[in-house]
Amino acid sequence: MGIERGALRYEGKSKRVWATSDPGRVLLEFKDDATAFNGVKKAQITDKGRINCALSAWLFERVADCGVRHHMVEKVSQTEMLCLDVEIIPVEVVIRNFIAGSFAKRYGIPEGARLPRPLVEFFYKSDALNDPLMGADVPVLMGWARGWEMALMSEQALHVNEILGSFWGDLGVDLVDFKLEFGRTADGRVVLADEITPDGSRLWEKGTGRKLDKDVFRRDLGDLTDTYREVYRRVFGVDLGA
Amino acid sequence: MGIERGALRYEGKSKRVWATSDPGRVLLEFKDDATAFNGVKKAQITDKGRINCALSAWLFERVADCGVRHHMVEKVSQTEMLCLDVEIIPVEVVIRNFIAGSFAKRYGIPEGARLPRPLVEFFYKSDALNDPLMGADVPVLMGWARGWEMALMSEQALHVNEILGSFWGDLGVDLVDFKLEFGRTADGRVVLADEITPDGSRLWEKGTGRKLDKDVFRRDLGDLTDTYREVYRRVFGVDLGA
Repeated sequence: MGIERGALRYEGKSKRVWATSDPGRVLLEFKDDATAFNGVKKAQITDKGRINCALSAWLFERVADCGVRHHMVEKVSQTEMLCLDVEIIPVEVVIRNFIAGSFAKRYGIPEGARLPRPLVEFFYKSDALNDPLMGADVPVLMGWARGWEMALMSEQALHVNEILGSFWGDLGVDLVDFKLEFGRTADGRVVLADEITPDGSRLWEKGTGRKLDKDVFRRDLGDLTDTYREVYRRVFGVDLGA
Repeated sequence: MGIERGALRYEGKSKRVWATSDPGRVLLEFKDDATAFNGVKKAQITDKGRINCALSAWLFERVADCGVRHHMVEKVSQTEMLCLDVEIIPVEVVIRNFIAGSFAKRYGIPEGARLPRPLVEFFYKSDALNDPLMGADVPVLMGWARGWEMALMSEQALHVNEILGSFWGDLGVDLVDFKLEFGRTADGRVVLADEITPDGSRLWEKGTGRKLDKDVFRRDLGDLTDTYREVYRRVFGVDLGA
C-alpha cells in the first residue's frame, strides 16, 4: 500500500491515529475494541475494526457523492484509512430521527417513537466531563467553534441524515440517531471527520426493531460480532462469517 | 385584605399555591423553607418568605414598567400575592451573564468570567428528572411548548435581563444568572410567572464578588437570613434585622 505508519499521535477508544511521512495526512486505524459508558465497559470484538473501517469508508464515499466533504483520502488496508490531518472541533453533533438512548433517558420518555422532524443536538467533546449537552450558542460563546462552523455543521449533519436515512432505508433499516464529528483542515475548511459506523449510530431493523448497532453490546442483547457482520452483509452483500 | 384562601392547589419547595373564590386567580404564598440540590438540603430561613414575596412583587412591577407581562395581580400580605391562575409551561428559562453554577461545572470552566453576551438556556421542568438541559427545539418537538411560545420566552427573558441587569447594577450588584418560568393564561397569552428572587438568581456584589443569593445556603458560605436581609436593605433602603 505504500503508506508507512509514523509515530502514534493519539489512541482513542476505538481508533488509533498515526502520523505518516506526509505532514498533512494521518493514518486512521480501526481497532477491534468496543467500549461503552465512557470506557467503563470494554471488550474485544472479532472483525469490528475491519467492519467499521469498511462501512465508514463506504459511507464517506456515499455522502461525498452528494457533495459532503470529509477527511478520508482513501482506504489503504482492511483496518486503515488515510485521512487529512484535521483539527477536530470539540463539538459532537448528534442527529435524532427517533426517540432513543440518552435522549429518552434524559427526558423520561419511552424509546421508539419517530420525531416529527430530525433533531440536532450538540455535545461538548470531553471524556473527563462525560460529553455534556449544550445549546448551539455555547460553543460560540466559549470559543470552541465559530458561528459559521456551527451553522455549517448543523446543515451538513442534516444533509448527511437525508443521505444515510435513505441509504439505510433501502436496506430495510431505520436510521434512529447518529453522531458526527467535524475537523478543520490546514487550509481552513471544515469537513466531516472521525467515522460513520454502528458504534456511533443507532440502526433498527424495520418491522422487527432488531438492533443492528453498539446497543447490542451496551445492553447485552447478543453477540456484537454477529450483529456487525449482519450490517456488513446488508451493505456489501458478502458474508464475513466462518 | 379580603382574599380568602381556598383549597391548597400545590405545594412546591418554596411556595404554596392556594385556590381563591375567583376561579381565574390563585394565592401564591412564599414559605421560609430553603432547599438545594433538588430538595436534598433543607432549612427554615427566618424572613425568607417575606423578603422573597416583597422582592418578587417589586421586580414584577419593574419589568411591567418596561412592558413585560406577568402573572401577579397584587401583593396582598407580607408573604402572599394574588396571581392569575396560569398553566405553567414546563420549560425553565435560564439567562446567564457570567460563568457560574451548573454551567461552570458542566463544562469544567472556572466561575467568574463575564460572557461576551447573555446566554439563554432551557431546562425541562421535572423534579423527577432533575430538570434536564435541552436545546430550543426539544420542547417544540415533544409538545411541551409551541414554537412561538419558545420565541416569546427567549425574547422576554432577554428583555427582563436588560431591565434587571440595570436595576441590580444601580445597586452595586452584578446579575450573574437567573431562572424564569412562564405560564399560559386562560385567554391564551403567555406571561412571566413563578417568582424573581435570590432563590433563582445569582447576585454578586460588584468589586468584592460577595454572594447575595441562595449559593450562600447551597455552599455554606454564611447566614442566609443576613444575606437576604442585605438584599432587601439594598432594594428598599429598610433594615429588616433586629
